Amino acid sequence: MSNNELPDVQLTKPKHEIAINRVGISDFKMPIFISKKDGGVQHSVANISCYVDLAPNIKGISMSRIPIGLMKFAKEQLSSKMMIKISENIRRSTEADLCDLGYYFTYFLTKHAPVSCEPGILPYEAWFNMIKTKDDHLFRFSVETIASSSCPCSKEISKYSAHNQKSRIKITCQGRKDEFIWIEDIIKIAEEASSCEIYSVLKRPDEKVVTESMYENSKFVEDIARSCYVKLSDIGSIEKFKVEVSNDESIHAHLAKAIIANY
Amino acid sequence: MSNNELPDVQLTKPKHEIAINRVGISDFKMPIFISKKDGGVQHSVANISCYVDLAPNIKGISMSRIPIGLMKFAKEQLSSKMMIKISENIRRSTEADLCDLGYYFTYFLTKHAPVSCEPGILPYEAWFNMIKTKDDHLFRFSVETIASSSCPCSKEISKYSAHNQKSRIKITCQGRKDEFIWIEDIIKIAEEASSCEIYSVLKRPDEKVVTESMYENSKFVEDIARSCYVKLSDIGSIEKFKVEVSNDESIHAHLAKAIIANY
Amino acid sequence: MSNNELPDVQLTKPKHEIAINRVGISDFKMPIFISKKDGGVQHSVANISCYVDLAPNIKGISMSRIPIGLMKFAKEQLSSKMMIKISENIRRSTEADLCDLGYYFTYFLTKHAPVSCEPGILPYEAWFNMIKTKDDHLFRFSVETIASSSCPCSKEISKYSAHNQKSRIKITCQGRKDEFIWIEDIIKIAEEASSCEIYSVLKRPDEKVVTESMYENSKFVEDIARSCYVKLSDIGSIEKFKVEVSNDESIHAHLAKAIIANY
Amino acid sequence: MSNNELPDVQLTKPKHEIAINRVGISDFKMPIFISKKDGGVQHSVANISCYVDLAPNIKGISMSRIPIGLMKFAKEQLSSKMMIKISENIRRSTEADLCDLGYYFTYFLTKHAPVSCEPGILPYEAWFNMIKTKDDHLFRFSVETIASSSCPCSKEISKYSAHNQKSRIKITCQGRKDEFIWIEDIIKIAEEASSCEIYSVLKRPDEKVVTESMYENSKFVEDIARSCYVKLSDIGSIEKFKVEVSNDESIHAHLAKAIIANY
Repeated sequence: MSNNELPDVQLTKPKHEIAINRVGISDFKMPIFISKKDGGVQHSVANISCYVDLAPNIKGISMSRIPIGLMKFAKEQLSSKMMIKISENIRRSTEADLCDLGYYFTYFLTKHAPVSCEPGILPYEAWFNMIKTKDDHLFRFSVETIASSSCPCSKEISKYSAHNQKSRIKITCQGRKDEFIWIEDIIKIAEEASSCEIYSVLKRPDEKVVTESMYENSKFVEDIARSCYVKLSDIGSIEKFKVEVSNDESIHAHLAKAIIANY
Repeated sequence: MSNNELPDVQLTKPKHEIAINRVGISDFKMPIFISKKDGGVQHSVANISCYVDLAPNIKGISMSRIPIGLMKFAKEQLSSKMMIKISENIRRSTEADLCDLGYYFTYFLTKHAPVSCEPGILPYEAWFNMIKTKDDHLFRFSVETIASSSCPCSKEISKYSAHNQKSRIKITCQGRKDEFIWIEDIIKIAEEASSCEIYSVLKRPDEKVVTESMYENSKFVEDIARSCYVKLSDIGSIEKFKVEVSNDESIHAHLAKAIIANY
Repeated sequence: MSNNELPDVQLTKPKHEIAINRVGISDFKMPIFISKKDGGVQHSVANISCYVDLAPNIKGISMSRIPIGLMKFAKEQLSSKMMIKISENIRRSTEADLCDLGYYFTYFLTKHAPVSCEPGILPYEAWFNMIKTKDDHLFRFSVETIASSSCPCSKEISKYSAHNQKSRIKITCQGRKDEFIWIEDIIKIAEEASSCEIYSVLKRPDEKVVTESMYENSKFVEDIARSCYVKLSDIGSIEKFKVEVSNDESIHAHLAKAIIANY
Repeated sequence: MSNNELPDVQLTKPKHEIAINRVGISDFKMPIFISKKDGGVQHSVANISCYVDLAPNIKGISMSRIPIGLMKFAKEQLSSKMMIKISENIRRSTEADLCDLGYYFTYFLTKHAPVSCEPGILPYEAWFNMIKTKDDHLFRFSVETIASSSCPCSKEISKYSAHNQKSRIKITCQGRKDEFIWIEDIIKIAEEASSCEIYSVLKRPDEKVVTESMYENSKFVEDIARSCYVKLSDIGSIEKFKVEVSNDESIHAHLAKAIIANY
């Protein structure tokens, strides 16, 4: 039996004629690959969500058109430009006014230890989001950088040392129309704002440098957020941004958090 | 050494004089108890976040004042009124303009199976949020109800049966000024909008009723969202609401999702 | 229609006559309460799993008897003795040889800051497990303590400070026949083995003491595991134990982990 | 300052001379790629743990040698043979008797819808584990397949339909010495044991077939576990196996689970 011979309940009238803001799928997993600033591509796995809007007088969307649209571009390199294509394709096939497409994935960078230069790979959680209408589109992305933070108060009041911990610095950016921003540049801002960047491989001479640097650059969660704010404000290609810093306090069960946005 | 003899780094000038939107703590866990509509109290465990704002010219908040404030009210029953007290207390002690206080917890209801009347307890994820300024406050809450959904398309096109699955219906409400809304009333809206409510204990005669009822009331994720919308619109005490429905499709790895809001 | 008038598919012969080790339910959530060492009770929320074994010639268990059994004791205080009653009740009602009952829950202790004596509540993840057969029973429990750890290598090689972080110390115990062990005593072992215990409220004089103490008692993940081992070996009432320590390294994205057991 | 000029605290005597079963790192994230049965390679992201044992008289392992060992093979294709190389390399560099190496990752297969033949990609959670000693090695792996299950009891007692839901079927295998087993073959066993396999893209004619097939092949969680048992027993290259089936019940908040092993 073909598609056309079966009734299409989705196209009937709904009981309540109310427009739906977003309807679609979430947790669709797929391998992806993406350009790196230093050349080459990064392979990863994405958790994808894709929603469209729905007119008041239609009962349901043809939901299979969303994974069909995602599969159609499965071999293409992920980029904001490619996300315009994918979301426009899905918007049209679902006859919607808007398509809201999100990719969550782990990005990777290889960094070299500060003294021994041993290479180590580091993960960064990223999110790409495209909202596409017929005549317009809006792209935003986030990246979460893990770094270390050392407490200025603990340093000041103690005979020696200072409590320190993992700091997760999540920056969300919306570029000016069609301006391109590298994930790597945002990660650099977060790392420079922290007490010290982290590494996957640290031999003893590296660990010495990192421990001392972390202590010298003690920072409150507020300091890290403000440093990111200042640096992000200086980048002309970024229109809106939000900074969320979480310090996983080594002396408490709870976390310390600061949020700052320019909008 | 007393508190006053130690330097207070937090009160110094920050390097960058920028206001911070939110700074505080998250993942602070505490037992709580709360009134139930049918009388008595429900004990649970809360995951609490509490943030204040910070003026541009202060380096950091006195963060210990937040857990001190939470501990001060640890023996009190949780309610929106109590959250006004807690957040106002923390707002004052941190000398902030605003305090944003959130409690995430599991709420429980005991329901009786439809035929055998066997009692069974069911969990509902809830979130209470209070934003308190000097002269005003804003309270919102969410509750996520698990119910079942059965697909109208699958029912229509198949010789027998229909695919069905867990549906998570999250409703977020903001009441009109000082109007009170029971969690139980919001859960009832979600359950009635679903294909069938769920139970913790179902003997065979109950399972027969639930299976048949779920099939008879087949609903798309869009239908459930719209039904909630209509019922929430009818409640005069609710000013703003948002409905998020996720069906954990039994025939796909991904989920189907619909979002609708009245603002 | 009554239960007896409906066919009972569970009691038919299975296609493949193979014994099943464990069959039952998981993620059954329920409020609980439990005795504290210092008197009084602690309310919490449990995530419960309950499995029985199944003979080769029976197609399925009467699964509703498991939540019915859990509900029957819903108002009782949780303890190893109560778990014998619950698991034996479910073992009999399901006509099984064995019942394997587990409760995961957050336990809480109030601790006072070392100098200011400010009270603060702290969460500890716990697991109670009872395996009940007709003539015997076996009880085990775990508790995970969050503490801080400071690195001896980083301290030794650096001009000042040492990297430090949250350390999660999970201890699983199996007592000698019918010997009672308090969760509080196991938590104390973990805290004493760490670089320094943590608190929910720390004013500046407290933070000074904690920072300095953490630095003075620098410990590798291996040191913490071994200290727990020695102390657990000294407790006559404990027959078997396992120690799992995870340090959420402030200088790496990954964790450092050590596992040690006496069996 | 070079590595040799800095003191090596790890090599000193520990306070308590007790052997440590496992010490190393967890949550080390890295991109990987792996051979597929139908040719070509699958890129993914792995969450890696790597532990070694430690002699009683050594304070700590040289932990940086573990990520160095993992990085050394970062460009190699993941396989059980490659894991022998990696774990042996790390075992030697840490001067340990044993290395226990684990990779958790999402594997992907593209399946075609049963009628329309539309391609859709599906995720499978996998775990590869190698335990390497000087003269021996032991390889095990797990793969979790998502499929659908439909309840035979619900079908039998109801006028129409049957409750159905996502079923997660996790199979862990240990092959006979140096026998090779494809992940794809284990996934096929799980899918055939379920009520119906799932797809990422289903047009209406596909959905009809899946709904009907799921109803015709109704299976308890016990039935699925036993079917896997029988099929795994028939594969000569598998020595030990364990089957864990979780049905995310559409009529309950909790899950139904069955576990069966041949050892």
